[in-house]
Amino acid sequence: MAKPVPTAILFDVFGTCVDWRTCVAREVAAMAKAKGVAVDALAFTDAWRANYSPSMEVVRSGKRPYVPLDVLHRETLVALCAQFGLPLSEAETDNLNFAWHRLDPWADTVAGLNRLKTKFILSPLSNGNVRLLVDMAKRAALPWDTVLSTEVFKAYKPMPQTYLGAVEMLGCKPGEVMLTAAHNADLRAGQALGLRTAFIHRPTEYGPAQKADLGPEGDWTYIARDLEDLADQLGV
Amino acid sequence: MAKPVPTAILFDVFGTCVDWRTCVAREVAAMAKAKGVAVDALAFTDAWRANYSPSMEVVRSGKRPYVPLDVLHRETLVALCAQFGLPLSEAETDNLNFAWHRLDPWADTVAGLNRLKTKFILSPLSNGNVRLLVDMAKRAALPWDTVLSTEVFKAYKPMPQTYLGAVEMLGCKPGEVMLTAAHNADLRAGQALGLRTAFIHRPTEYGPAQKADLGPEGDWTYIARDLEDLADQLGV
Repeated sequence: MAKPVPTAILFDVFGTCVDWRTCVAREVAAMAKAKGVAVDALAFTDAWRANYSPSMEVVRSGKRPYVPLDVLHRETLVALCAQFGLPLSEAETDNLNFAWHRLDPWADTVAGLNRLKTKFILSPLSNGNVRLLVDMAKRAALPWDTVLSTEVFKAYKPMPQTYLGAVEMLGCKPGEVMLTAAHNADLRAGQALGLRTAFIHRPTEYGPAQKADLGPEGDWTYIARDLEDLADQLGV
Repeated sequence: MAKPVPTAILFDVFGTCVDWRTCVAREVAAMAKAKGVAVDALAFTDAWRANYSPSMEVVRSGKRPYVPLDVLHRETLVALCAQFGLPLSEAETDNLNFAWHRLDPWADTVAGLNRLKTKFILSPLSNGNVRLLVDMAKRAALPWDTVLSTEVFKAYKPMPQTYLGAVEMLGCKPGEVMLTAAHNADLRAGQALGLRTAFIHRPTEYGPAQKADLGPEGDWTYIARDLEDLADQLGV
């Protein structure tokens, strides 16, 4: 039986479409060099990302009202600067925090998205706030048809209202929308709500020693090497 | 003194970026012809648009919970089909209702937006729902950076939360955002909240007998013949 073909495709962004680790570490290293401080930029970046989910969990659990990811990122950054001995001014902190707005796409991302855009409605569905995603898309030429951030729903993935809210905004039923991600947990949450799913292999998102999400762990609609392969499979 | 230069520009869409009257009338005429019925397509279209603001007012006044513009458009369409003697099936009604998703841009719109996009974040801020605006943008090649619809705020312009919500989503202060519209009332509402404003001349939006919005009626930041002229004035 032919696989279902979606009307719209939602994309996880950090790790799935862009390489946050290399890009953030590059900016951390440049900032440390400018300040004349020795900092392990990859360790700094990994620690920053390690607090990503815990920082959102405070919002997801209802302990804290929604604040955009830029705010959570900055709070973690301030703590890490103290921990790693990287003294930054307010302006320098803001600037380094916005490294997350300046992430480079994986080599296949822009070509894959441009092919998929010819037939499908494309939008991110990311925990990054709207402005972060818009800045990233302009810089990296990500050809979104619109930018759906979980900020629109004042919630964070994997809260159900983020997936269902995006489906509603796209004027679709859940089965008409496909979530594309390099993370099995994200796909699991979308699938439970009726969305189609596509797993993308990004085995070095967390560096050469990556341990999680090395392969598909669910019955996903599509499994693809990268976004060009996904375009091949969808016939565009 | 130099005029303020915005970070982001929001655009009214119906009338400002696209020519709804010609395009909807064309689809009404084609549908009437297919059904073998004589209908004054321009009168039908003008009546459809005449109920635009009244239909939203029921939501704005709090008498009815928010429903997307597609729903309001369809209710008006059903009433007009009875009034004008145009008998349509459910599928034909849906199809004609989506004429509002298939509007052509004015001659300067795409070129003007592409120039403005090189320097500014561009988004619609329209009462059209997200899917309507996304469908329109894909068909007409409107190069939005994201698609902010008042649907995101479950409200309709000129309710303040639509302008302020868009400013917040763009990560800006009101004075960093410029609202661009062919309608003085829209600009007045935005200006009262601190947004910059640009008036665009669209003297035939309502046809050759247009009586309102023939020129600027406020102290707008920019006044432009069209979107190419606005790009000229903003130096892009």
